[in-house]
Amino acid sequence: MVNVYQKSLSLHRKLRGKLETTLKTPLRTKIDLSLVYTPGVAEPCRQIAKRPADIYKYTIKKNTIAVITDGTAILGLGNIGPAAGLPVMEGKCCLFKKFGGVNAFPICIQAKSPAEFIKTVKNISVGFGGINLEDIGAPHCFEIERTLIRELDIPVFHDDQHGTAVVVLAGLINALWLAKREISSAKIVILGAGAAGLSIAELLYEYGAKNILIVDTKGIIYEGREHMDSEKTRLAQMTNPRKIYGSLTDAMYGANVFIGVSRGGLVKPEMIKMMDNDPIVFTMANPEPEIMPEEAKKAGAYIIATGRSDFPNQINNVLGFPGIFRGALDKGIKKFTNEMFIRAAEALAKCMKNPTPEKIIPDPFDPKAHKAVARAI
Amino acid sequence: MVNVYQKSLSLHRKLRGKLETTLKTPLRTKIDLSLVYTPGVAEPCRQIAKRPADIYKYTIKKNTIAVITDGTAILGLGNIGPAAGLPVMEGKCCLFKKFGGVNAFPICIQAKSPAEFIKTVKNISVGFGGINLEDIGAPHCFEIERTLIRELDIPVFHDDQHGTAVVVLAGLINALWLAKREISSAKIVILGAGAAGLSIAELLYEYGAKNILIVDTKGIIYEGREHMDSEKTRLAQMTNPRKIYGSLTDAMYGANVFIGVSRGGLVKPEMIKMMDNDPIVFTMANPEPEIMPEEAKKAGAYIIATGRSDFPNQINNVLGFPGIFRGALDKGIKKFTNEMFIRAAEALAKCMKNPTPEKIIPDPFDPKAHKAVARAI
Repeated sequence: MVNVYQKSLSLHRKLRGKLETTLKTPLRTKIDLSLVYTPGVAEPCRQIAKRPADIYKYTIKKNTIAVITDGTAILGLGNIGPAAGLPVMEGKCCLFKKFGGVNAFPICIQAKSPAEFIKTVKNISVGFGGINLEDIGAPHCFEIERTLIRELDIPVFHDDQHGTAVVVLAGLINALWLAKREISSAKIVILGAGAAGLSIAELLYEYGAKNILIVDTKGIIYEGREHMDSEKTRLAQMTNPRKIYGSLTDAMYGANVFIGVSRGGLVKPEMIKMMDNDPIVFTMANPEPEIMPEEAKKAGAYIIATGRSDFPNQINNVLGFPGIFRGALDKGIKKFTNEMFIRAAEALAKCMKNPTPEKIIPDPFDPKAHKAVARAI
Repeated sequence: MVNVYQKSLSLHRKLRGKLETTLKTPLRTKIDLSLVYTPGVAEPCRQIAKRPADIYKYTIKKNTIAVITDGTAILGLGNIGPAAGLPVMEGKCCLFKKFGGVNAFPICIQAKSPAEFIKTVKNISVGFGGINLEDIGAPHCFEIERTLIRELDIPVFHDDQHGTAVVVLAGLINALWLAKREISSAKIVILGAGAAGLSIAELLYEYGAKNILIVDTKGIIYEGREHMDSEKTRLAQMTNPRKIYGSLTDAMYGANVFIGVSRGGLVKPEMIKMMDNDPIVFTMANPEPEIMPEEAKKAGAYIIATGRSDFPNQINNVLGFPGIFRGALDKGIKKFTNEMFIRAAEALAKCMKNPTPEKIIPDPFDPKAHKAVARAI
């Protein structure tokens, strides 16, 4: 791990920026100049002034999105601010281009409040065909996403919520098939009640999961508990109507599925041993998982997945977001729905003709995967 | 002209965006993924969180600027809004890359007031190494630029003001040399008291011009006249202390230099005939000049320049801004000064070893020109 960090730092120092802007048309003569710029450029401007929808016909809006953060939840590093989040946003933009053919540009926003952040995003949105919100902390990410979806006429997507949920559901569909379990009867524990955890819970619930316990630092969440917020309450009402309470250890007892989207090291081998037979363990905290895969294996985990590219079964949203926006931009979709996300997850799961415990989900380098997601949207 | 507009529209329709984002490093293996994105990317994030200045070492900020408009003064088309301005912003970004090697990204801002615009620019500035303000109307462009220069720690440059001024001064240095005039004794008429006109007046004044009349739709500007604003008053005090008044026709009488940055068709051949011998006529309104070059020629103009790439002597800021930001980014300059702008203009003028009336300024495709500007900053 020291190695991957130091190598990455060297690469970043060498590149000084992982992406650049390039021209799609040559600019070699005065004639080129008069078409790309003045005086010719006045004509598409006039057209768009007359018919605002023509912006999709003549500009980058057709195939360009913004990857936007406020820096409040960068990877698992926490609230390190928008400037320190820039390397992640750049990386994300690289993945959008590589896997989805989507032009993406990073925007790091320094804002004093969610309202100011929302205002800033709205003010700059006109030139973009979509907004990918990234690494924005809970619970303000929910309000931010909801408001932007309502008030903008371009698709808005908080990847930490829905991107993660889509790919988790895809992996889980194949993992449950291997473990011969139905989602409706599986006991599922989700550790982490932030952006990812709550959205995963919601999507699994929409997909038919009936037995979900969401655990945060204070234990299992339920309506009326201390340290709840409106989003936790909404999900607790949905997934835990019997108001089951207890610690992470209590929750893990007899569970079929563990999904960790919290912090490194929170899960002990003993907890894995308490789970039901053939337990499915998605230990996805980044960069350090809740329990290292080898430890989980030793403790009896049947299927193990992480969020990292250097272990098998990477449940990384890179399998989701490029195809999701590719589909949305191609089809002119203005708002995403849970139905689209479920179709995308099913399409992703189906890409694996013969899943095995070490291979429940396609490789991010499999172009079929991204195409399947785009088609499903 | 119909032709250039229709051709440009077809090109825009075909391209659907004149620029795209591309990766600077291959992304072919899981190892690449772990360095460009998680988990490796956590390391540059941690470094920047510890030492904010390291953002220049590890990210696009080192060589990326934003090209930002509020859509209030797009070309000569007026206040057509930020969406309709996007084709111009994209074009500008293409020129930044082509001629300066600067990565530039267009941001169109919808804001209700200059204060909101300023706030939005500040909120998104952290990921950029500089801000090129573009096609922002007067007089609010002055307040906007001044505030952003004061409050940001990256270079801010309103191209319509200073970019135009630099290239006009460069052309004028050679034109005056050909006409055997000193700038200190030349009578100069500037038509247009917007962003460009007032900034040209200021830079010429700083360079030594003593006899400048600025004319707007109400005639020559002077302190105390009706329809003034604080910026016009500031420039009038500087350039017209004797409070000369009158119409454009009055101003043109006996003038050596006419500089038009206003609207198409405002100058009649008779006005050119009233000028002194060997008059210098920069008729730069875009897309339609104040007087067409052939008419000005017939009326006796000795040296004629326009803002367009399809006539000789293009006084287009494309000769200025790419080198200006290239120099600023390379040298880590935080604020531009008039001294830098004058050095850039002189460097640009000197690129022409043997200026002639048809060739007072380098071709934008001459790489020496942009390098000379970058070095002068």
